[in-house]
Amino acid sequence: MERNEVELQYKWDLSLIYKNQKEFDKDLNKAKNILKVLTDMKDSFTDTKENFLKFNQESVHLSRLLNKTYVYAHLNTDVEPENQTYQYLLSSILAFSQQVSNALDFVELEIIKNKEQVKDYLTDDQLKVYQFNIENILREEKHLLSQEMETLLSKVSSISNTAENVFEAFRLDYEDVLVDGEKKTLNSATLSEFLKNKDPKVREMAYHNFFKEYKKYENVFAAMLSGQMNKDAFYADVRKFPTPLSASQWNDDVPEALFYKILEKANKQYRPLFHRYNVLKKKILKLDTLHNYDLNVPLTDDITKKYTVEECWDIILDVVSVYGEEYINIIKQARQERWIDFYPTKGKRIGGYSSGCYDTRPYILLNFIGEYDSLSTMIHELGHSAHTYLSSKYQDPANSDYRIFVAEVASTVNETLLINYMLDHASSKKEKAYYIYEFLENCVGLIFRQPMYAEFEDTLHKWASNHEPMNASRITDLYASLNKDYYGEAVELDNLAGHSCFYIPHFYYNYYVYKYTLGMTAALAIVSRIRNKTEHQIENYLSFLKSGGSMTPVELLKKAGIDPLEDSIYDDAFHYFEELLNTFEELMED
Amino acid sequence: MERNEVELQYKWDLSLIYKNQKEFDKDLNKAKNILKVLTDMKDSFTDTKENFLKFNQESVHLSRLLNKTYVYAHLNTDVEPENQTYQYLLSSILAFSQQVSNALDFVELEIIKNKEQVKDYLTDDQLKVYQFNIENILREEKHLLSQEMETLLSKVSSISNTAENVFEAFRLDYEDVLVDGEKKTLNSATLSEFLKNKDPKVREMAYHNFFKEYKKYENVFAAMLSGQMNKDAFYADVRKFPTPLSASQWNDDVPEALFYKILEKANKQYRPLFHRYNVLKKKILKLDTLHNYDLNVPLTDDITKKYTVEECWDIILDVVSVYGEEYINIIKQARQERWIDFYPTKGKRIGGYSSGCYDTRPYILLNFIGEYDSLSTMIHELGHSAHTYLSSKYQDPANSDYRIFVAEVASTVNETLLINYMLDHASSKKEKAYYIYEFLENCVGLIFRQPMYAEFEDTLHKWASNHEPMNASRITDLYASLNKDYYGEAVELDNLAGHSCFYIPHFYYNYYVYKYTLGMTAALAIVSRIRNKTEHQIENYLSFLKSGGSMTPVELLKKAGIDPLEDSIYDDAFHYFEELLNTFEELMED
Repeated sequence: MERNEVELQYKWDLSLIYKNQKEFDKDLNKAKNILKVLTDMKDSFTDTKENFLKFNQESVHLSRLLNKTYVYAHLNTDVEPENQTYQYLLSSILAFSQQVSNALDFVELEIIKNKEQVKDYLTDDQLKVYQFNIENILREEKHLLSQEMETLLSKVSSISNTAENVFEAFRLDYEDVLVDGEKKTLNSATLSEFLKNKDPKVREMAYHNFFKEYKKYENVFAAMLSGQMNKDAFYADVRKFPTPLSASQWNDDVPEALFYKILEKANKQYRPLFHRYNVLKKKILKLDTLHNYDLNVPLTDDITKKYTVEECWDIILDVVSVYGEEYINIIKQARQERWIDFYPTKGKRIGGYSSGCYDTRPYILLNFIGEYDSLSTMIHELGHSAHTYLSSKYQDPANSDYRIFVAEVASTVNETLLINYMLDHASSKKEKAYYIYEFLENCVGLIFRQPMYAEFEDTLHKWASNHEPMNASRITDLYASLNKDYYGEAVELDNLAGHSCFYIPHFYYNYYVYKYTLGMTAALAIVSRIRNKTEHQIENYLSFLKSGGSMTPVELLKKAGIDPLEDSIYDDAFHYFEELLNTFEELMED
Repeated sequence: MERNEVELQYKWDLSLIYKNQKEFDKDLNKAKNILKVLTDMKDSFTDTKENFLKFNQESVHLSRLLNKTYVYAHLNTDVEPENQTYQYLLSSILAFSQQVSNALDFVELEIIKNKEQVKDYLTDDQLKVYQFNIENILREEKHLLSQEMETLLSKVSSISNTAENVFEAFRLDYEDVLVDGEKKTLNSATLSEFLKNKDPKVREMAYHNFFKEYKKYENVFAAMLSGQMNKDAFYADVRKFPTPLSASQWNDDVPEALFYKILEKANKQYRPLFHRYNVLKKKILKLDTLHNYDLNVPLTDDITKKYTVEECWDIILDVVSVYGEEYINIIKQARQERWIDFYPTKGKRIGGYSSGCYDTRPYILLNFIGEYDSLSTMIHELGHSAHTYLSSKYQDPANSDYRIFVAEVASTVNETLLINYMLDHASSKKEKAYYIYEFLENCVGLIFRQPMYAEFEDTLHKWASNHEPMNASRITDLYASLNKDYYGEAVELDNLAGHSCFYIPHFYYNYYVYKYTLGMTAALAIVSRIRNKTEHQIENYLSFLKSGGSMTPVELLKKAGIDPLEDSIYDDAFHYFEELLNTFEELMED
């Protein structure tokens, strides 16, 4: 579909950010002036409390302008990648951000150098809002290098993003898929639809037509992916971290052991549960051979519902009513102000996300096709957006940004509440089975598949750290072998399965995927307590959503009532999965 | 064509390097042991003359092994990119080279630190062969950073090649071209054939089908190309060079003014000559509109000859007979030992090159299609190979490698001699016109087009240095505008012309292209002296070919009788072009 064929109400309203390029340019110029002010204070900003306050205020102001202009440029580019004006705005803001980061590379070192003085300033009430971030800077001391080394390192950032930039720009075309003799367009959004088709030939063709393109360009993808791994290994090395994993986790102030605990639970201890689910699928689908591309065929085909955008809004409003007035009003505002860009259009970025900042609405990009999955993604992204909205409302701009580590909780709690809502409102055994099935599928993605991704990513990072060669065949062999163990014996792995790793953008995000697993696990605990009407749970959870990035992720989660370092939340999650699997098996046997 | 359909005699014989992977592995292990020896000497290699000698000997030995294994892996990969074993060997040797460069990052600093001692050692006869290279290291002093900065910088190399790696791995597929109703395969090798077709529709279709792929992936190419420019700007900046150009030229010990002199001569002073040639083309071809993709249509279609590989060998032997016995025998050996891989096959690297080292034959990759251009490329690459062969024979391995700056002379002299030979042997006016035409085309490529490329590349580097945004539209707009001035008013520029920059690999080679212009200009002078039987010219030229990299490029060229800093060689070249253009115009008017 072309973008101009979409009705206005289904496209986001970015004019709420800037009415025109003039307003964008004005903010960019304002930012440039502030940068001048900040660099002029280079040698004096820690001299007096007044200077230090002014410097922090101006810094935050600069960040806000950078964020706002960036959000405007990237949202527009993601829906209109061919529009060269937006591409130009985006590269302008990226180039300027680069310049800012180079020009301000002195800040952290100066603060550390004058740490006693700075700690003293922080006792002042006016500086309280900057305390958490400045303490995080002081924590960096042992990973910081000399001023000249830091200057060099900040220059490296001009070349270190090449792999990701190329990956972002790389859009493939796929051969059409024959459905009932008719040619249908294949792309990222329609692939999942084809993989649910009852006709095994459609599934096979869709899977092959899709992933053969990744095989065709395997050397390109291998070069991009290894470029990314080398980048992560490089920064970990020069910043004196023992591993890229520890470097990634240091930012979140989380122990390395947490990562391996999640892998141990999901990839070893509880994986037999997933294998059992696959055996059940094979039985229900009555297939002689269950290929990995057969696993998305609905097991409960009678109740394959379609939802309009309007129906989705109504359901979501009902689901979030449990949170009370304030949350409900956010969702209403999102609808009214058009925060969401719904439909897949030509060239539009794949997947879904929520993106915004203190000075913009928290916008949402979707590729809405009206299945349950679309509804689920919509409430997921609205979870992020509500989190951003509440954090911006209740926190000072210095502390409103939350880390990705806690981000997935807000979205996954919503998804899980939605499933529970659907189960509660099911009018028949069949319908109940359908929603349990959807829930199981959702769980598989987050508590089984993501940890497998994490293991893959961890191995690639280790190769990079050891300077081991990383060509297409070594990468795809590894991925195929991990998939074989992952799916278990009931599933016949396709020859292209090893190449499907090249499709997943998260491998460019430096240890992101395991955070989904943690988010899901935490969410299951939160939801179960909400449903059990545990005292203060709603209150605690909303207070978490309002806290932005004002404390460490572990502290934030504890605020929501969850300790991610405890074994029990993982065990509870997998046992909940097992319970639902038991119920599902019974329902399907009837 | 599939590789196994090509007769053995037309494929290079890489078994002369290694018979099997075991031999490759043996050398790689040997290299690893030498690296151990060298790093063990880290603190002692400048202590005594004996240590210093041993260190240099082992260093050269290590380089030889690295070169030999690399040549083996990359030649094999270039003809069989799908072969994962070769891809693996290639990444192994690249990863090990990276490791070597990291492990030996102390060498230059140590030599500079102990420069007085080292200079004293160099007076010893046994160390004479290392003198030139060590003096080059001493010259680096003001661009070297502290030890910890150098260590960091050597680690950066693990990520700085991503843009080039991705570009190398990126092979496009092109839509077929209709020729007389028949579908023909379009690729880099056949494109030039289609652009010579008499049917304007074939030319248009070939050009559009080819370059629309570059438009389709314009954001990918822009990301790769800007990644490369940022890399060059990064290294120039941290190494304290005023511009990326000066950094690139510093290695060749050549003044920056030389670059701009070439651009001034070719892009300003003498460009009207090229425009005049285009006006003549339009007249001869009797076209209402002369598109840029019409410029390759032969003006002298009567004598469009085809050459077999065997005919090419015979002609080349005749051409090089002017150099005497030794050169002739090299060509005979190349033929007998199968140094050349002739035909385009599926997936094979495009273009042509000569590649080899002290311990291998100087192999040649071609995409031979039997036109005059193929013959010309063949003698061009054989020029490089003979240069490599003679330098390896007459120089110590420490000094045999010549710089790319002088490399193009050896090849272009051969090309120019070939043209002259063809002219001398022409049996009719028409044939004479044909070869002058070929010569003019050749000149256009080297003395007009390459300097236009150079200007493009210089502008991109300036953008990168200034951290200016570099998106697809800005890049292609620049290239289109340079092309408009370049072709002149007689030529109608196609809308895709701006995108053709993405096709040219040389933009990834950091200011390489202007060296072609210099090579051609020098070659014209050398050839004219050879033809005028200037005393000692053959002798001087052969002595240049035997000198490898034993002195600076300017000194080497002077050895061949040419001073690249003098205006006159450029003026002579363009006047020679003008003279031939006059003759050609007369011949065509008859």
